[in-house]
Amino acid sequence: MRAASRRSRRTERAAPVMPAYITRRIPYFEYMREEGLVRIEEQADRLIEEVGIEFRDDPEALRIWKDAGADVKDTRVRLPRGMARELLKTAPSKFTQHARNPARSVEIGETSTVFAPIYGAPFTRCLEKGRRYGSFEDFDKLSKLVSMLPSLHHMGLVICEPCDLPVNKRHLDMVLAHMRNSDKPFLGAITEKSRARDSVDMARILFGEAFMRDNCVIMGNVNTNSPLHVDKVVTEAIQVYCGAGQGIVVAPFILGGAMGPVTTAASIAQALAEAMVCGAFSQLVRPGAPFVLGNFLSSMSLKSGAPTFGMPEPVASNYIIGQLARRLGVPLRCGGSLTASKLPDAQAAAESADSMHSTAMGGANFVLHSAGWMEGGLVSGFEKLVIDADRLGAYQKLLGGIDTDDNALGADAYEDVEPAGHFLGSAHTMRNYETAYYDAVLSDSESFEQWTERGGKDTAQRAFERWNKMLDEHQPPPLDEAVNEALAEFVEKKKQSMPDAWY
Amino acid sequence: MRAASRRSRRTERAAPVMPAYITRRIPYFEYMREEGLVRIEEQADRLIEEVGIEFRDDPEALRIWKDAGADVKDTRVRLPRGMARELLKTAPSKFTQHARNPARSVEIGETSTVFAPIYGAPFTRCLEKGRRYGSFEDFDKLSKLVSMLPSLHHMGLVICEPCDLPVNKRHLDMVLAHMRNSDKPFLGAITEKSRARDSVDMARILFGEAFMRDNCVIMGNVNTNSPLHVDKVVTEAIQVYCGAGQGIVVAPFILGGAMGPVTTAASIAQALAEAMVCGAFSQLVRPGAPFVLGNFLSSMSLKSGAPTFGMPEPVASNYIIGQLARRLGVPLRCGGSLTASKLPDAQAAAESADSMHSTAMGGANFVLHSAGWMEGGLVSGFEKLVIDADRLGAYQKLLGGIDTDDNALGADAYEDVEPAGHFLGSAHTMRNYETAYYDAVLSDSESFEQWTERGGKDTAQRAFERWNKMLDEHQPPPLDEAVNEALAEFVEKKKQSMPDAWY
Repeated sequence: MRAASRRSRRTERAAPVMPAYITRRIPYFEYMREEGLVRIEEQADRLIEEVGIEFRDDPEALRIWKDAGADVKDTRVRLPRGMARELLKTAPSKFTQHARNPARSVEIGETSTVFAPIYGAPFTRCLEKGRRYGSFEDFDKLSKLVSMLPSLHHMGLVICEPCDLPVNKRHLDMVLAHMRNSDKPFLGAITEKSRARDSVDMARILFGEAFMRDNCVIMGNVNTNSPLHVDKVVTEAIQVYCGAGQGIVVAPFILGGAMGPVTTAASIAQALAEAMVCGAFSQLVRPGAPFVLGNFLSSMSLKSGAPTFGMPEPVASNYIIGQLARRLGVPLRCGGSLTASKLPDAQAAAESADSMHSTAMGGANFVLHSAGWMEGGLVSGFEKLVIDADRLGAYQKLLGGIDTDDNALGADAYEDVEPAGHFLGSAHTMRNYETAYYDAVLSDSESFEQWTERGGKDTAQRAFERWNKMLDEHQPPPLDEAVNEALAEFVEKKKQSMPDAWY
Repeated sequence: MRAASRRSRRTERAAPVMPAYITRRIPYFEYMREEGLVRIEEQADRLIEEVGIEFRDDPEALRIWKDAGADVKDTRVRLPRGMARELLKTAPSKFTQHARNPARSVEIGETSTVFAPIYGAPFTRCLEKGRRYGSFEDFDKLSKLVSMLPSLHHMGLVICEPCDLPVNKRHLDMVLAHMRNSDKPFLGAITEKSRARDSVDMARILFGEAFMRDNCVIMGNVNTNSPLHVDKVVTEAIQVYCGAGQGIVVAPFILGGAMGPVTTAASIAQALAEAMVCGAFSQLVRPGAPFVLGNFLSSMSLKSGAPTFGMPEPVASNYIIGQLARRLGVPLRCGGSLTASKLPDAQAAAESADSMHSTAMGGANFVLHSAGWMEGGLVSGFEKLVIDADRLGAYQKLLGGIDTDDNALGADAYEDVEPAGHFLGSAHTMRNYETAYYDAVLSDSESFEQWTERGGKDTAQRAFERWNKMLDEHQPPPLDEAVNEALAEFVEKKKQSMPDAWY
């Protein structure tokens, strides 16, 4: 009992309590001038009206478009000028995604920002075991870490692919693990319509049918099939999630020069067109449904054609899409702590920082991949996760702005400190030093001699020690036993209802 | 001959020709609202008027202040409200610092930005030899590297301390090495009045007396002795450099809670007060003298009291001091690629990136420490230098903005690409791919398999190989033989004129 209480105190000190989400208190960075923004919007509008978007493999989606008055020829959908913007007017500029712990509920949109971890990596990496296919054991550990990291506000879903579980059943284990390991909000599955439904059904068990009818408690996150192609994964997920009054995030993923034009402005325009049309579709399915306009641009190596991350063009695109989303009045997903690096090294950190700095300053409201991303998204890194999370806390503070009240201005600081004196131990210092600066857990600021004495460890080694220590301290938040059993029963029944499938 | 030509071609490809300095084509990030800025300015004005600044050990400085109508009591100088701002009106908002190669001359101020390397580190570090005191051999190598790196526009001066040379003579070797190794602009010495004079005299030999009379060809960079204390190193350097029509950079270095209040707004106000008063002094010495308002804030570890870098408060201060300098209408020095890390690892890169991203976006015009800085400025890192320089190229591109002309918007890109198709090899892609994206030399974007085959090297190892290869390729730019001899003669004569001193 005393040991437990000591441990809990230590944990609190290592991870100071942060708000459930970020409230931005600073202005936006208007990176691109009005004229340029208008030209990008006009190009997006032209694509929607003249080239149109392919909606394939989902006759229901085509029917919905036809009924709404769109120009539908075969699978090509063109919208008259202004129709997408008009439909998007019912999408909320901000909404709440509820967590089972109300203190962890998040607001997404306007000045509110939510950080979520990497999504979809088939591999994991840690210092001890190196790079390997993700397993459910890895998934469960990562889920616990994300739950504990105070600067991650949201669990996301596929922190890594649990490749040792059947493809048609792993969503059940993933959703259940997040529900049990954490009381933070989470995403549901989207890869297949029934899996999306399972996720929504599980959320219904956790939150109760009545509460869920009027509130967003789960979201799906989908990618369009760029260029200008939306497949049934997207339209079915929108129908399942928005149909149940839940949220949807639609993010065109564009590698410039492959899934979109190689020039940045053109890629942004195409992504805007695709996301706007999907957003309009979500509002046809259910006016007022929470919709997050997504954007994911990647640049390309001139040497190899491979995708690159953290380069200035996608970094600029974070700022620009932020401006465009605000003009549209819808919440934005973009960016993340992105890198092509194979290791949690200097390249990884520099690319992630430039990508994430612009993501945060640019006004993103929901940030998937904000921690753990390595190797172009192929690898979920244990060390990278905690290294990134440490920096996310810094962006959280940066978004909070700098106070200029009398105390912050040091109006009385010079009463007991003369010119050429020093402020160590002065009244103003003693009153403020505990809250003056962000305390980065993983940043070493010791002297070279102290650092050498303690083993001369690099950031990755310190991160390895930190996440292992954290896992030792994880305690699942309390969960109503009846709900827990009902969830287990649902999952068991679903698993029994079909044979394992590996595709 | 053919071998040389092949080598030169390869070098060109590795380091694309960049402009001599950066021209910003994007708006500024107005991080703090008007009200907060006004409150910081008012606090700075109060400090100048009421508390005053100590000017010690330089009677001539006190005489200049008295003659100008300042309130001087002993060594305390107080300026009537508005006097500093009034005097600063003669300081140019932008000026040219000429290089001996006119194509390398830089503009400093307004929308022009210049990156210079680390300054003043007593130690160096590289993968092969580890951490050790800097030597002239190290200095010379670093000088050659800075000269070759296209995203570094300026040589600075003390890239590392050549600790094996006598303290009273090393400035001669440093200035001479920069003059011979490079045709980029550089700084002169400031540690002692005669050393500042030597630097100006050597510049006069290089540029010619007539040219130098009307043009800025050298600058000194000095730190105030915060809080609110300016010693004779500063006032003498201003008198020597500005007296000769040359430039001066004055940067208060404030570790919050020690040399200034622990709260960020208060530290910014104090730094602004100190720098404004020194700027005003420079204009008393010579109205119209190039003056750069400097700012260097460091936060502190709550655990140890040690300085920390790349934390959100100093990052925010880069944005805020940028706003304040623009309101004052003078060029700004701030920020850099700063870190407390002992190694060129993830911590180093993340802290450097957040620090430098805000430095660049915030509108700094002259950035000392923009590459090579490690361990709180104690260490000049060979690998860190080239890693940072690679990222500086990305900021250069980011500051250039994103085009939105018809080609950039891809107005014709969809003529040969259908929805659900791809842009690989399309006409628009072929026309644009070579210039579409920044080519980061040190960022690895290969597949895991390719990367593993090539040795699985981390960023630091690749950086080590790169700087060694660069040094093999260094060729000093041509220098008039008569000038070269005159410089050598000047240095030799100075060295003979005094015994070695080690303090």
